[in-house]
Amino acid sequence: MKRTVKIGGVSVGGGNPVAVQTMAKAAATDIKAIIEQAAAAKEAGCDIFRVAVPDMSAAAALREIRRNIDMPLVADIHFDYKLAIAAAKNRADKVRINPGNIKKAGLKELTAALKDLRVPVRVGVNGGSLEKSYKNSSDRASALASSAMDAIRLMEDLGFYDIVASLKSSSAAETVAAYRQIDKLCQYPLHIGVTEAGTPERGIIKSAAALGSLLLDGIGDTVRISLAADPTAEVKAARELLRAVGLDKSFVEVIACPRCGRCGYDVGGLAQKVEDYTRNVKKPLKIAVMGCVVNGSGEAGACDLGIAFGGDKAVVFKDGSVLKTVGADDAEGCLFEEIKKLLL
Amino acid sequence: MKRTVKIGGVSVGGGNPVAVQTMAKAAATDIKAIIEQAAAAKEAGCDIFRVAVPDMSAAAALREIRRNIDMPLVADIHFDYKLAIAAAKNRADKVRINPGNIKKAGLKELTAALKDLRVPVRVGVNGGSLEKSYKNSSDRASALASSAMDAIRLMEDLGFYDIVASLKSSSAAETVAAYRQIDKLCQYPLHIGVTEAGTPERGIIKSAAALGSLLLDGIGDTVRISLAADPTAEVKAARELLRAVGLDKSFVEVIACPRCGRCGYDVGGLAQKVEDYTRNVKKPLKIAVMGCVVNGSGEAGACDLGIAFGGDKAVVFKDGSVLKTVGADDAEGCLFEEIKKLLL
Repeated sequence: MKRTVKIGGVSVGGGNPVAVQTMAKAAATDIKAIIEQAAAAKEAGCDIFRVAVPDMSAAAALREIRRNIDMPLVADIHFDYKLAIAAAKNRADKVRINPGNIKKAGLKELTAALKDLRVPVRVGVNGGSLEKSYKNSSDRASALASSAMDAIRLMEDLGFYDIVASLKSSSAAETVAAYRQIDKLCQYPLHIGVTEAGTPERGIIKSAAALGSLLLDGIGDTVRISLAADPTAEVKAARELLRAVGLDKSFVEVIACPRCGRCGYDVGGLAQKVEDYTRNVKKPLKIAVMGCVVNGSGEAGACDLGIAFGGDKAVVFKDGSVLKTVGADDAEGCLFEEIKKLLL
Repeated sequence: MKRTVKIGGVSVGGGNPVAVQTMAKAAATDIKAIIEQAAAAKEAGCDIFRVAVPDMSAAAALREIRRNIDMPLVADIHFDYKLAIAAAKNRADKVRINPGNIKKAGLKELTAALKDLRVPVRVGVNGGSLEKSYKNSSDRASALASSAMDAIRLMEDLGFYDIVASLKSSSAAETVAAYRQIDKLCQYPLHIGVTEAGTPERGIIKSAAALGSLLLDGIGDTVRISLAADPTAEVKAARELLRAVGLDKSFVEVIACPRCGRCGYDVGGLAQKVEDYTRNVKKPLKIAVMGCVVNGSGEAGACDLGIAFGGDKAVVFKDGSVLKTVGADDAEGCLFEEIKKLLL
C-alpha cells in the first residue's frame, strides 16, 4: 500500500478510493470559465481539478478560483519553479511539476518552499518532455521511471515526502511498463494516465487498455483520462473505467448479452433502457438482461435482478431465484416494475 | 508462443496477428441477414465470423452461408454435441462448444468426429454456464481455467490438438485472472473476450480494460468485444483496441493533446478532423496535434508529421525536424497540405 498524501480534503494512496482528476481547458485568468468547467466536472464525478499555470497572472488567479470550487485545486507548472511557489502561496492544494523542464537548483528551492507551506507535489514526468539525459534512451519506460525517481530522491534528501508521481506516455505499452517499474521503486501514490490519448473515440479505448491493466493489478491511486474533449467527458470515462474494473461499485451494472441467432428479442435495446433508467442510481446493484438460456439463468441468477428470454417467454430472476415467467411481450413492463421496487 | 491452429484460411496462434471475431445477431436460417452482417463485419475489419447453431436447421444452413461469406465460419454450439458434428460436416471452419453444457460422452464422440473431419474446436467456457462441479467454486477464475483444461485433456487423450480455448466472464478482473492461469497451463491459442460486456458505452471500456491488460502482456490470439450492438460495432471496437495496444500498426495514429489553459486553439477539433480524414488509410503513420510547447515538440518531433501551437503561431514538424512556422490561422491548411503529401 502506498503512503497517504492529502490533497486538500482528498486523501490519495493508503487504501483510499482511486480519485478521478481532470484539467480545465480554459485559461486560469478566465476565472468564470474555470469555475463552470469545475462545477460540471464535479457533477460528473471529478474528485480533483487541475489548472494550467503558465505565468504569474495565472498563479494569482488561483486564489479566486480556490474560493469558488469545492474540489482540491492543482496547479500545473512547467519551466518555472517560481510559478509553483506562487501557486502554493495562492492556495493551490497541490502543485504538479515536470522534472523534464525544471532545473535541479529550482527543484531544491521549490521543495523547501512546499515543505514550509505544507503543499504536496506531483512529480509528473511525460514522454513528450523527458529531461535531456533520458530523452534518447532506447528503454523509454525505464527512462520515465528514472527521471521521476531522480526528482523524488532530490526531494527526499531535503526531508520532503508529500509526493505523488506520474509517468505518462502516449503509448499504452510504455505507460504500463513505466508504472509497473515505479510501483516497485517507491511508496508514493501514483497518478496514472496515458498522455495525449487523442479523440474520445480512440482515446477512451487506449486509456482503458493501459489504465485498466494497471488498476486491475492494484496500481494507481488517482487517474485521469486525457481526451481532446471537455473535462466532463474525461471524468465520465474515468468513472466508467473505475466501474469496469470493480473499483467503483456504487452504480447499477447492467450485464447484457450481445444477442445471437438464439434470440429474436431486442435485448440490446432493453439493456440500454435499463442503463438509461438507472444511470444516476448510486447503489451497488447488478441487473442482467439476457437473450437465452445458455448463460441466461447463470448470469441472471447471480444478479440482484435479471431477465432471460427463451422462445416467446422470459424468466425474471430476483436474488438468485426465479420470480416469475412472463410472455416476451410483457417482459419489459415486468422488468421495470421489479427495477422500481429494487430502487425504492 | 502458442501452437498454430488453422481456422479456414486464417491461422491463429504461432505468432500470427491477433484475429478479430464477431458473431451474427441473426438466426442462421435467415441466410440473407447473416450474409449481410458478415459482409459489413468484414468491411469493418473482421477476420472470423461466428453463427449460433441451436438446432439442425441452423446446422444445415451453414453450407449455404459458407459459400457466401469470405471469412472462416464458426458454429456456436451449446447442449447438443450432435449439432457440432453436423456443423462440421456442413463446412463450418471451426466449432465452438461449451464444456459447461455438453456431457463427457458427447465430447468424446465429437472429438473423434472433428479429428476425422479435420475441423478445429474452441473449448469456450463461460462464467454464466460453468459445469455443475465448478459452479459454486469461490475461486471463479480457477474454476473457469479448470473447466476448460478438463475438456482439453479429454480431447488430447483422444489425440486431438486442433484446439482454441476461451474463458469468458462478465467481470474484467475474473477474465484477466482466468486467462493468466490458462496461459500458463496450455499451449493452445486463446480467444479472449469479456462476456455480456453490455452496451457500447460501458462494454467497450470494460472490454478494453480486461482485454487490453491481457494483450499488453502478450496473451490472446483472437479477440471479440461482445456488445449489445451490431457486429460492426464489435469489430470496430476490437480493431481500435488492437491499435491502442500496438498490435495493429497499419493506421494513422493521431496523438492529440487534451488542451489546457496554455492553448486557445481548438486542437481537439483539429485532431478530430485529422482522424476523420485519415480514417481509411492503412499506412503505419503517426500525426501529432499539440496545443503548446510543453510536450509539443517532443511528441510532434517523434511523429511522421506534427503540429505544435504556441501563442499565435504553430510549428509544423516532419520526420523529427521543424518544417516551418506558420500563423495559427494558416495552421490547419498547412497541416492538411502536408498530410496530403504524406499520403501520396
